[in-house]
Amino acid sequence: MGMVDLEEIRAEVDSALAGFFDRATLAGGIEPHSDDMIEVIEGFVLTGGKRIRPVLCALGWLAADPQPRCRAPLIGLAAGLEMFHAAILIHDDVMDRSATRRGRPTVHRVMAGLRPDRGGQDGEWYGTCAAIVLGDLALAWADKLTCGQLSAEQLGRVLPQIAQMRHEVTIGQYLDLHSAGARSADADLAEMIIRYKTAYYTVYRPLSIGAAAGNASRETTRVLHHYGMPVGKAFQLRDDLLGVFGDPLLTGKPVTDDAREGKHTALIAHALTTASSPQAVKLGQLWGKPDITESEVDTVREILTTTGTVRAVENLITDHHRAALAALETPHLPTEVAEALRTIADQAVERDR
Amino acid sequence: MGMVDLEEIRAEVDSALAGFFDRATLAGGIEPHSDDMIEVIEGFVLTGGKRIRPVLCALGWLAADPQPRCRAPLIGLAAGLEMFHAAILIHDDVMDRSATRRGRPTVHRVMAGLRPDRGGQDGEWYGTCAAIVLGDLALAWADKLTCGQLSAEQLGRVLPQIAQMRHEVTIGQYLDLHSAGARSADADLAEMIIRYKTAYYTVYRPLSIGAAAGNASRETTRVLHHYGMPVGKAFQLRDDLLGVFGDPLLTGKPVTDDAREGKHTALIAHALTTASSPQAVKLGQLWGKPDITESEVDTVREILTTTGTVRAVENLITDHHRAALAALETPHLPTEVAEALRTIADQAVERDR
Repeated sequence: MGMVDLEEIRAEVDSALAGFFDRATLAGGIEPHSDDMIEVIEGFVLTGGKRIRPVLCALGWLAADPQPRCRAPLIGLAAGLEMFHAAILIHDDVMDRSATRRGRPTVHRVMAGLRPDRGGQDGEWYGTCAAIVLGDLALAWADKLTCGQLSAEQLGRVLPQIAQMRHEVTIGQYLDLHSAGARSADADLAEMIIRYKTAYYTVYRPLSIGAAAGNASRETTRVLHHYGMPVGKAFQLRDDLLGVFGDPLLTGKPVTDDAREGKHTALIAHALTTASSPQAVKLGQLWGKPDITESEVDTVREILTTTGTVRAVENLITDHHRAALAALETPHLPTEVAEALRTIADQAVERDR
Repeated sequence: MGMVDLEEIRAEVDSALAGFFDRATLAGGIEPHSDDMIEVIEGFVLTGGKRIRPVLCALGWLAADPQPRCRAPLIGLAAGLEMFHAAILIHDDVMDRSATRRGRPTVHRVMAGLRPDRGGQDGEWYGTCAAIVLGDLALAWADKLTCGQLSAEQLGRVLPQIAQMRHEVTIGQYLDLHSAGARSADADLAEMIIRYKTAYYTVYRPLSIGAAAGNASRETTRVLHHYGMPVGKAFQLRDDLLGVFGDPLLTGKPVTDDAREGKHTALIAHALTTASSPQAVKLGQLWGKPDITESEVDTVREILTTTGTVRAVENLITDHHRAALAALETPHLPTEVAEALRTIADQAVERDR
């Protein structure tokens, strides 16, 4: 095979997703009541998103089976992961009360806007309920995309992995919710959240799902694990930093979001262990403050910088990055796939959005 | 085969679900943060519930394959449907703001009680978020149960059906939400909601999922469709009546719930077409009134009775019941399965809970 073209994979996934919405709109005889809602999900799924999970899924497949006879099942499976991710984000944004995502209003905000006042329900509650249902619908559509093109044999290998991914990411979300506002220095808990929400979910599972579909050897799967876990951790740590230091124009979300929700990140856990007593008190007051201002976020930034937390987290990211690249030095991966995985690792740690 | 013992099927499903929670609690290393939450889902799934979907799924399978070599895959698949249903109910109760279900506090109420005040989040919002996540977790667990024991070949036949069921029930929920409080006499919309939320979801799809797993002939599947659709419609109409006229001690939910939410039921659509002008105005004021009282529900009952709506809906139920029984007069079903389906149809229309 030639070079693995990451942009081409992204384009194929986007086109599979767009094609699915065409069919979903046509099917079912549920018009006209559902036209708005289908458009909202479609807009959310097709606009923006880094497509990191589908790309990794495709690479996991190609790692095991570099020349698949037909690319449609591979792309369908990858697109199913992206649809699943959309569902997770829709529910996540409700829980975090986020107003924007990818620089656009979140799904619950859009839906609230469609029914500003409706039969005794206020618009905001309608938006919340609609986003719960639309998330559930995206989950059902993920199933349709996933099982649409795989053979029975492939399904038998892939589905336990997908069920496990769904279990893990949801446990991660629960831990996230459960610990939000706890303001503790519990680094173990922060590490556990990272493992479930990102290391597994964002990187390793997509790889292993693709690998299972492609019928990977045990060695190849092990390599993907050794690569995927550190990349996932580095990805999440970069996310934590961007959540406080990022440029909202690039990340698509306000810098106050993480702070307002009091996200239990490794960043904050580290800061609390190294902060002076007055710094820890200040951080405790600000992190999780529902009406935190941008200038208060400046104070958080200052504490994170002066305690050496930012430097420590950057060092961790570098270590994970190195470990991931080392895992790629193996005969158990096609060269072109290893090359593509190296690019992904670089992007995961160096990105500004 | 001997008689199909419906109680035995229910007991097997319950024991498969209980066994799953044992494993779920042990697995994953997510203690102690998640013990509470697993207990809450377990309590919800194992306590109460008519188990109509798993029983129908088992009957669909037995219709095609009366003597399965091994019952574990059949029971696992059936239990997966019950777990999926729990997820749907958990999200439904959030959206309906229901306080009780099956005579116990709903999941979002239980979760709200566990965190009365937490880091700036009020307990009620925490309960809402936790119920979103717990519903999502039950969805993931449904996947695990479903794909746990089926062969690849069975999965290949069953999964498109399950994806379709998930699509349909969620569309039904969206239509329900979308139309709540609309107070219109749109009987087509009410019919569409019945079709998606109940006729397909509660009766026909569980049958057809079981039938697909058992590799049913096209004739058998057609018979199950002709039986399932009217039973589903009768089931929903009975539900609508119980929602206004039922005994809360038996139904496990207050009689004000449907009225408060302004559910767009066939009952109300019919009443609005036959009501006198003052009755229609009154009904419009009360149905969907957020703080409706029990004595106001009495007024609703009076309107539903004097307009002949109750009688008309009872007649419809009788017609559907008859059509379902007629569909069972066929050589394409094993006698014992037809007998069991007759019992289910009787229970669906005659129940008081």
